[in-house]
Amino acid sequence: MSEQFKCRINLLYNDLQSEIWCNKGSILINVLNQNNIYLDAPCGGKCLCGKCKVKVIGDCTSVPTDGELKFLTDKERKEGYRLACAMKVVDDIEVMVESNNSAQIMSEGIGNVVEISPIVRKKFVQLEKPTKHDQKDDLQRLLDTLGMQYYRIPLQILRELPDLIRDHNYEITVVYSDREIISVEGGDTSNTHYGIAVDIGTTTVVAYLVDITSGREIDVVSQLNAQKSFGSDVISRITYTLENMDGLKQLQQKIISQINHMINSLVEKNKLNIETIHHIVLVGNTTMLHLLTGITPKNIATSPFIPVSTQELVCRAEDLGLNINSKCAAYLLCSISGYVGADIVAAILASGMAEKHELSLLIDIGTNGEIALGNKDQIICCSTAAGPAFEGAHIRNGVGGIAGAINTVRLEGDQVKYTTILDHKPIGICGSGIIDILSILVEIGIVDETGRIVDEDEVKSEIGKKLTKNVIEIEGMPAFVIAKETETKNKEAIVITQKDIREVQLAKAAIAGGINTLIKSMGKKIEDISHVYLAGGFGSYIDKQSAVNIGLLPKVLKDNIIVLGNAAGTGAVMSLLSQKCYHHCTNIKNKAKYIELSTSQEFQDEYINCMYF
Amino acid sequence: MSEQFKCRINLLYNDLQSEIWCNKGSILINVLNQNNIYLDAPCGGKCLCGKCKVKVIGDCTSVPTDGELKFLTDKERKEGYRLACAMKVVDDIEVMVESNNSAQIMSEGIGNVVEISPIVRKKFVQLEKPTKHDQKDDLQRLLDTLGMQYYRIPLQILRELPDLIRDHNYEITVVYSDREIISVEGGDTSNTHYGIAVDIGTTTVVAYLVDITSGREIDVVSQLNAQKSFGSDVISRITYTLENMDGLKQLQQKIISQINHMINSLVEKNKLNIETIHHIVLVGNTTMLHLLTGITPKNIATSPFIPVSTQELVCRAEDLGLNINSKCAAYLLCSISGYVGADIVAAILASGMAEKHELSLLIDIGTNGEIALGNKDQIICCSTAAGPAFEGAHIRNGVGGIAGAINTVRLEGDQVKYTTILDHKPIGICGSGIIDILSILVEIGIVDETGRIVDEDEVKSEIGKKLTKNVIEIEGMPAFVIAKETETKNKEAIVITQKDIREVQLAKAAIAGGINTLIKSMGKKIEDISHVYLAGGFGSYIDKQSAVNIGLLPKVLKDNIIVLGNAAGTGAVMSLLSQKCYHHCTNIKNKAKYIELSTSQEFQDEYINCMYF
Repeated sequence: MSEQFKCRINLLYNDLQSEIWCNKGSILINVLNQNNIYLDAPCGGKCLCGKCKVKVIGDCTSVPTDGELKFLTDKERKEGYRLACAMKVVDDIEVMVESNNSAQIMSEGIGNVVEISPIVRKKFVQLEKPTKHDQKDDLQRLLDTLGMQYYRIPLQILRELPDLIRDHNYEITVVYSDREIISVEGGDTSNTHYGIAVDIGTTTVVAYLVDITSGREIDVVSQLNAQKSFGSDVISRITYTLENMDGLKQLQQKIISQINHMINSLVEKNKLNIETIHHIVLVGNTTMLHLLTGITPKNIATSPFIPVSTQELVCRAEDLGLNINSKCAAYLLCSISGYVGADIVAAILASGMAEKHELSLLIDIGTNGEIALGNKDQIICCSTAAGPAFEGAHIRNGVGGIAGAINTVRLEGDQVKYTTILDHKPIGICGSGIIDILSILVEIGIVDETGRIVDEDEVKSEIGKKLTKNVIEIEGMPAFVIAKETETKNKEAIVITQKDIREVQLAKAAIAGGINTLIKSMGKKIEDISHVYLAGGFGSYIDKQSAVNIGLLPKVLKDNIIVLGNAAGTGAVMSLLSQKCYHHCTNIKNKAKYIELSTSQEFQDEYINCMYF
Repeated sequence: MSEQFKCRINLLYNDLQSEIWCNKGSILINVLNQNNIYLDAPCGGKCLCGKCKVKVIGDCTSVPTDGELKFLTDKERKEGYRLACAMKVVDDIEVMVESNNSAQIMSEGIGNVVEISPIVRKKFVQLEKPTKHDQKDDLQRLLDTLGMQYYRIPLQILRELPDLIRDHNYEITVVYSDREIISVEGGDTSNTHYGIAVDIGTTTVVAYLVDITSGREIDVVSQLNAQKSFGSDVISRITYTLENMDGLKQLQQKIISQINHMINSLVEKNKLNIETIHHIVLVGNTTMLHLLTGITPKNIATSPFIPVSTQELVCRAEDLGLNINSKCAAYLLCSISGYVGADIVAAILASGMAEKHELSLLIDIGTNGEIALGNKDQIICCSTAAGPAFEGAHIRNGVGGIAGAINTVRLEGDQVKYTTILDHKPIGICGSGIIDILSILVEIGIVDETGRIVDEDEVKSEIGKKLTKNVIEIEGMPAFVIAKETETKNKEAIVITQKDIREVQLAKAAIAGGINTLIKSMGKKIEDISHVYLAGGFGSYIDKQSAVNIGLLPKVLKDNIIVLGNAAGTGAVMSLLSQKCYHHCTNIKNKAKYIELSTSQEFQDEYINCMYF
């Protein structure tokens, strides 16, 4: 990662862990502030009060400044303490923020710092033994001790309960939610309480193992969605369910068995007992959740794009075919529409935008770009068919975010420099690289505002004139060479062609047009927006300046852009840990209004306008 | 039935049907009043106003009096109209009460006349077709049309829903409860909505088939509990579950398969489709419900007599193993304690006592006598081990209520007369006959107040002196001959022995002692009680005067005794038809307090006192 321009901060707070990203060289306190974590710094971050102490764990190439050293004891220096207002982030680091030096932690912000009060709780209870003067039945005795009134209880648990409580001297541990007793165990097992959060993306599936007692995210595993062999995007998978007998069942079994496999590997790796997992939260786009539950998504594919259900769904993991603790409760978070799924609801939750007074914009760019605009009063959202250009598809030398992909491009003087993922020899260019190179080409005038690669004599800038040498002709159209054939793995130049630029124009116009349509629909101006949250993997890697330069994101908001990383996963974990967060998803759904862009004249106009650079 | 002294009235009111019993020769309007059905009769039942017209359907040996004829047109006479204030009930009859001539119908009284508003409803809905401007998902569209907010919905229904609504032009019929969508069917099937109510007694299982749309009880089937081969009473069945591997499972399967069989026969006989049954309500004593659900009742058998659950239980019929519509919802009504079960809750519901200001007593006499005392403010109840004497067990010539059982005994002059069930030759004596003969023997002084069959010279009354000829000696103890050997089927005299009398004394002391204990516990006097409800089969057949004479029931309440018949079944049907009734069961449970007689010194004292005649 050292050659890249992003640094990852693994943040520890009150035994909670979260991951945030920043540009290399950022001042730590600013990064924390951007992520809604505010340290107590009465001097205003001028290195004058020494209050913003944090502990950096492990290796770190940055050394304390003289200003910092004034406030650190020798012991503190050895232990890695730093002042957040003075420290520049130049590596991937792990930072511990002690709760007593944080003035305010946004409870439901990006920091994933949530009060641990999960939907599925585990509690050790000591029941009073019955006598002839206290003949309450076993269940009532349990409910009274738990302070529960309404409940559902599976027959199986009623069958186990009487012997369990008597065999364990009336001391048992109960796994329960507000309305349901999920499991009972003998003795005190309250310290082993784990949950799984899963984000099912069309491309990638991520599963998190969480210690619900401490709130600690223990481990995470990420895999390509096993359904990819049935079609790379939502529509092709829906088509598969229609064209194949049992196609829906096949896709369902594929994802279920993949999730089972991921959970097993998490559990085995961390030496846990699968029976200690009582809670699983699943998010994904609407189609993925339909496929997961074996519910046909076919009507999502054709106008008017109607899902069977966007409601939250609570069922027994067993009913879904998940081979984990058979009593484990599975919670599928709610979606908003056929094309704004539970992953976006979870991302909105993770961003905290739905609790703020200020207006925020959330963007998740993939094959579709899902966009949400709103605050605590209302949210409007849309999905725009960005196409897979930003994922490297339909681009001559486009690749996904794999080793050897050119992921950043910059100018150094009149030289085009790039980095690749894992420093491998370049094999192609991925989305963030495509945005960087386009930004450069527009800036130096090799591409004009209509997206045309101009003739040599039309180039005005000095650097541009020098770089016209990189413009070659491929298949009768101009193309700009980013990596020469001598530099690449397969000895062919990596270029961006005129056609590639058109693809990117369509994609960025779809996103930018969607943003503008939402802003106008709400009767707002772009300046009314206080934060722009980028969700999803792609958003984590693009350079904000480049994105703004090509008009993908609004220029005036450049300094307000916050990268969330896998916000859907973060939101799923938050819902696992906090019933407030879980219920908040329904609030988000309820206050969200979906705008169908395919019928919006406004969008058509914006789309055309946004095509220009 | 014509030789017996009870008549059955099949009562029709607003398409609702119920069954009430009365003594032969009773005036119809009095019978209706006793059953809380009050006709508009301004003249006070003196045959002066002609307002209390009812229609008697079918044959009836009673003919209109001259008084009646003054108020009936020829047409009305032909159609069977009668005045309830003048008509004596001398046959089993069917009576239709027109709603416009009833001043007040107790909504939850014995009459089983309840407002039809079932827990499980069926409704035809026409959904708006979705458009790009109305992209609500299928489920939300359905919920909004139904006006439902919170719900559970099985995955299977979500899987069926999208094709179902589109294949039926957005016209579907929904089976649903307040919180759950149970089933969806294409088109309008709202007129086929049936339910089953089952009363699982230790001895007898009764199943009712009910048309939930009209509230009509279509059919009923009654069988001996198939578990009887595993033990005739609750304790012996519990013992079986403890002494046999899989004993619990065997007993569960026995009752489940019996209920399946009964339902199938009801459905086939009435030419219904099993899929049209969406609702089943089950009542029974606490042990029977434990066995039904495969939950061990073993802790009910030993002190301190703790059931696993007395709560209402809602589950899918499928989960219980009931082979009917797999989506059918099964509702097990709540119990009060290990020995006061859901059958008593249902009987209390059917009696209406828990809605009345006045204090009522409810008694269900079987092997155990369950007794409840209370009104709308509080209910206290107990269970007393009456023993099976009233069911004919432990009595030398005792039999159950079968053909040939002596069921009534009376004196005609100095002759002992009896009747038998179905007029067969006598084979033994059942509970009602035992009470009759004891009442007679005490009255004429052959049995003294301590229960001893006195010596011939101690008899004071003329009739008694004449009847001492019937006292013989059997196995060294005195016995009274009821049917001579020449009269009986097996040519042996049917007698009641000194030992039999002791058994009955114990049984009646348990009941009477329980009643007195409840009254004292509540700080009331016997005179404070306004109604005595007799629930259960036995209560339907005993002669009130005899029961009072032997001290089984309190003398001062003789005229306030109301026979409910199978009140548990009636309550189950009411809960099937009315969610108000269903929820009222929980109210009854909540206001009920169980008194454990085995620890009550009060009861011990009363028990001894009540041993005397």
